[in-house]
Amino acid sequence: MHYQNTLNKVHKAALAIENQGNVASYIPELENVNPNHFGVHLATIKNKQFAIGDSEIRFSIQSITKVLALTLAYQIKGGELWERVGVEPSGTPFNSLVQLEYEKGIPRNPFINAGAIVICDILMSLFENPKKDFLDFIRKLAQNENINFDEIIVESEKSTGFRNAALINLMKDFGNIHNDIDAVLDLYFNLCSIKMTCNELANTFLFLANHGVHTITGEKILTKSRTKRINAIMQMCGFYDEAGDFSYKVGLPGKSGVGGGIVAIHPKKYCIVVWSPRLNKKGNSYRGMKFLEWFTTETASSIF
Amino acid sequence: MHYQNTLNKVHKAALAIENQGNVASYIPELENVNPNHFGVHLATIKNKQFAIGDSEIRFSIQSITKVLALTLAYQIKGGELWERVGVEPSGTPFNSLVQLEYEKGIPRNPFINAGAIVICDILMSLFENPKKDFLDFIRKLAQNENINFDEIIVESEKSTGFRNAALINLMKDFGNIHNDIDAVLDLYFNLCSIKMTCNELANTFLFLANHGVHTITGEKILTKSRTKRINAIMQMCGFYDEAGDFSYKVGLPGKSGVGGGIVAIHPKKYCIVVWSPRLNKKGNSYRGMKFLEWFTTETASSIF
Amino acid sequence: MHYQNTLNKVHKAALAIENQGNVASYIPELENVNPNHFGVHLATIKNKQFAIGDSEIRFSIQSITKVLALTLAYQIKGGELWERVGVEPSGTPFNSLVQLEYEKGIPRNPFINAGAIVICDILMSLFENPKKDFLDFIRKLAQNENINFDEIIVESEKSTGFRNAALINLMKDFGNIHNDIDAVLDLYFNLCSIKMTCNELANTFLFLANHGVHTITGEKILTKSRTKRINAIMQMCGFYDEAGDFSYKVGLPGKSGVGGGIVAIHPKKYCIVVWSPRLNKKGNSYRGMKFLEWFTTETASSIF
Amino acid sequence: MHYQNTLNKVHKAALAIENQGNVASYIPELENVNPNHFGVHLATIKNKQFAIGDSEIRFSIQSITKVLALTLAYQIKGGELWERVGVEPSGTPFNSLVQLEYEKGIPRNPFINAGAIVICDILMSLFENPKKDFLDFIRKLAQNENINFDEIIVESEKSTGFRNAALINLMKDFGNIHNDIDAVLDLYFNLCSIKMTCNELANTFLFLANHGVHTITGEKILTKSRTKRINAIMQMCGFYDEAGDFSYKVGLPGKSGVGGGIVAIHPKKYCIVVWSPRLNKKGNSYRGMKFLEWFTTETASSIF
Repeated sequence: MHYQNTLNKVHKAALAIENQGNVASYIPELENVNPNHFGVHLATIKNKQFAIGDSEIRFSIQSITKVLALTLAYQIKGGELWERVGVEPSGTPFNSLVQLEYEKGIPRNPFINAGAIVICDILMSLFENPKKDFLDFIRKLAQNENINFDEIIVESEKSTGFRNAALINLMKDFGNIHNDIDAVLDLYFNLCSIKMTCNELANTFLFLANHGVHTITGEKILTKSRTKRINAIMQMCGFYDEAGDFSYKVGLPGKSGVGGGIVAIHPKKYCIVVWSPRLNKKGNSYRGMKFLEWFTTETASSIF
Repeated sequence: MHYQNTLNKVHKAALAIENQGNVASYIPELENVNPNHFGVHLATIKNKQFAIGDSEIRFSIQSITKVLALTLAYQIKGGELWERVGVEPSGTPFNSLVQLEYEKGIPRNPFINAGAIVICDILMSLFENPKKDFLDFIRKLAQNENINFDEIIVESEKSTGFRNAALINLMKDFGNIHNDIDAVLDLYFNLCSIKMTCNELANTFLFLANHGVHTITGEKILTKSRTKRINAIMQMCGFYDEAGDFSYKVGLPGKSGVGGGIVAIHPKKYCIVVWSPRLNKKGNSYRGMKFLEWFTTETASSIF
Repeated sequence: MHYQNTLNKVHKAALAIENQGNVASYIPELENVNPNHFGVHLATIKNKQFAIGDSEIRFSIQSITKVLALTLAYQIKGGELWERVGVEPSGTPFNSLVQLEYEKGIPRNPFINAGAIVICDILMSLFENPKKDFLDFIRKLAQNENINFDEIIVESEKSTGFRNAALINLMKDFGNIHNDIDAVLDLYFNLCSIKMTCNELANTFLFLANHGVHTITGEKILTKSRTKRINAIMQMCGFYDEAGDFSYKVGLPGKSGVGGGIVAIHPKKYCIVVWSPRLNKKGNSYRGMKFLEWFTTETASSIF
Repeated sequence: MHYQNTLNKVHKAALAIENQGNVASYIPELENVNPNHFGVHLATIKNKQFAIGDSEIRFSIQSITKVLALTLAYQIKGGELWERVGVEPSGTPFNSLVQLEYEKGIPRNPFINAGAIVICDILMSLFENPKKDFLDFIRKLAQNENINFDEIIVESEKSTGFRNAALINLMKDFGNIHNDIDAVLDLYFNLCSIKMTCNELANTFLFLANHGVHTITGEKILTKSRTKRINAIMQMCGFYDEAGDFSYKVGLPGKSGVGGGIVAIHPKKYCIVVWSPRLNKKGNSYRGMKFLEWFTTETASSIF
């Protein structure tokens, strides 16, 4: 299928509406992004590429990285993972300590902050040099040696990350963190700091639309079953407490980040990435949500 | 596609494993069901019918009725509904008062008890004789005049339904119940008491696999968009706090009931209903979950 | 000690400040009370009586009745009571369901609504005719045959008491209510509806300042140890989530009601009752709190 | 009054019962204490001294220090304190994050860990060298230059204090911690590590029984009103979720620590300190609670 016309049309329609919401402001590196950036890239499993707008500008992928961290840990540990992190929606805002306390330090799923921190702890135990190894993993997926952490963002995150520090200390108290707290948080903040373009992200995530197989190298990143698992977790838990709405309006598994990026997967067809920095009240890209809603309607892409 | 061979094969495999879990025991009418019943019925949107086992024995559909109640209310009220009930997963066991109190009497979604009770309150306001009108609605979907409430189950439910009474009183206190409490609960318990066979249920729910159009009468039960909404809510919220696991293992939107029934929808293809009364720890049919997991794997039916 | 001069002085000072807060408005019978009523009565264990202002006008004692209900149940059941209701402060607003759910239907203490309802359930099990027997008990304490329930208040409470209905249904679900729900609520609302004057209340509660012995009849209402227990519970739990502040500012065990009454006990000395209907944000009499704070300061009455 | 005979008698009775419960075990320095130590010291406001058992052996005062930290901060900041920490009982176990999250980082009272950490943060802001100044303050109260922090305990606490780290990070996130987290925790752990004998503790706390005036130097440590406030907070919040039981059984304001010490104040009469390391299920000294219950009964010391 040729998606360019639809991309153009929906991009134009989304530009025509008021760009509501606010850019994330808890660190200067996010606050100072131009709020009017708006890019889209779609890559099909046949490696056809379609794009419009600011699709070649890098932005902070933030929580989108959690899917890749999970993938890397899942590749190695398999189902053992689920002893330390759940697969159910959280039902509460993404960084709540309440649920973590009631559930004895086991986070609800790997896409809330607590869950992603546990995944980082697991990566710490698995790798000698987890930062380097993670970067290698991403670069291999993206087929691009030029992807990096952003040290300025890392430092900013660390200086304001008190709630994440509360989460990890609570989990450590419950015995669900095995490594040094500062080292795990350093890894976590580095992973979130990665900057990528819509193009790079779409091609990095494309294996999730292709039963776990890299569409260029042919490498099996994950088994078919594990790929399904990750897509299912994205569907259930990818949008904090807006998962139900996204599920209905867009009808695809996906993951958002506070940098304004959203990745969505159409199994067996494509991966699409949208970036627009203004966030709605639930913390997801305002224009990105609208774009995906209209795009999947236009292309009848919903899985439901 | 011809599903009979796969049904046979998976049914046999599921019979071969130990039938774990316990039959629901809070009322005698559920407790006294033969725990070894095991039926399956699959209806395609082309009206092909496939079945095996106890697919022609009626059982108490219990919470499965919540999807039909939502459908009837949604048909008439449309998006206004979402002012009184949410569309997000609950993240807590299905009858928790805690969340209801923190969220000021607005239930998380229409498939937890509190949410279904609000839907019943809405039906009370919409219809002169909601019990009769609901039964007419179901009978029309099922193309069967012979479907009925089970008064004995209704009475049993009423005599033990203290937690539901707590839920409705709390919501009334928050102003989210508009009708008389006893009348709403009477409607709710009647709706849950309906008895249907796997065959009847599969054909009743088939419009959800067919963009909202009844496959026999051609009547538009719901718009395409609203049908998608209901499927998405089933995906997110249809299995209490086992939604994530069901989503992964089965990969289809669905809804279970404590009578041991499970309905699952493959959009644009079929509706399948499984019934086996023993429940796992999360309150979903033990053998039913296994059957659907294996069946969707065999037929590569997952939407992910 | 002669308290009249201090009563006069503090009453005058309290009248001089703005009468802030609002009269309880959830039922018309409380809303329509003259908000400027202001009465005080102090009775010593030597049966000296001191009063000022509207001390001979009856008002709805509301939650103050919970102390008397507890006394009657404790008289008969003794320490067995504490298997069904706790003695610790609640730490949350007075009618929260959250705590009740987490603590499996055992209310924190007998002075939150849930706890008082359990006490009523216990009285139901103990007496043939609990309403009559409770009235006899109060009349004997008050030495006054003329004290009664207010049926209009009872009916009003019933028609708005959805949260209490939620509480009792939840406790019934947990097995902590043994009698019929409607009968228990009827008893509860009757007990809260009693109307008494400051004078009558002060003399009714005086045994709690006198080691459990009635100061006129000499009857032992409670043992010394159980009297101490009730005073301690009043100290810890008598003022919802303002208990800490009352404890500090007044320094005496006491109990308030939404009718605007407050009873306070100075062990071995006196019982004082203040009535002023306007309530502060925590639901306790605004002027009553001020009066008691100043009065105990003037008379150096704090137990601390 | 001469208390020696009663001390002897009750000490003997308490020795005669089985010494139940367990010594705190989360750090070796507490775990390795001889569990059979049992000392008592009572000092009257006339500076009469009575003692029995191991009253001259130093032990880790732990949470008892929170009263002294509060006193020092209150001395300087007065009522301003209550903007950053409450005065109401917590109603939940002593280190719960749940309440702290719902109440936006304002701890319920200064005697739960979170509250004491806020007090330490306030002391950090008030003093150049808060550790030295606190030690000076205690030494002046105790009239003893020889009281010190225990650095080994401090290090042990730090290496296991993940929950306290979670608490302080959460409060920092809410803006209720103004200083560096590690520095505040260092102060907190130092304060808790102080070792004192029953004798030293009783004389250190004696000003709280004497309207805030030091019984030897005559210095006014706190005003009468603030002293009353601290006693009231001890009454309401001094024993975690056993405050109600202590209030009833002992009937005096007091504070316990996991080292097995309990301080209790009889206003206008005496201060008594008991030490026995085995703790009951609520974390208070098993034998200490029994001793105080029997002692106050024997001496009719209850304030109720």
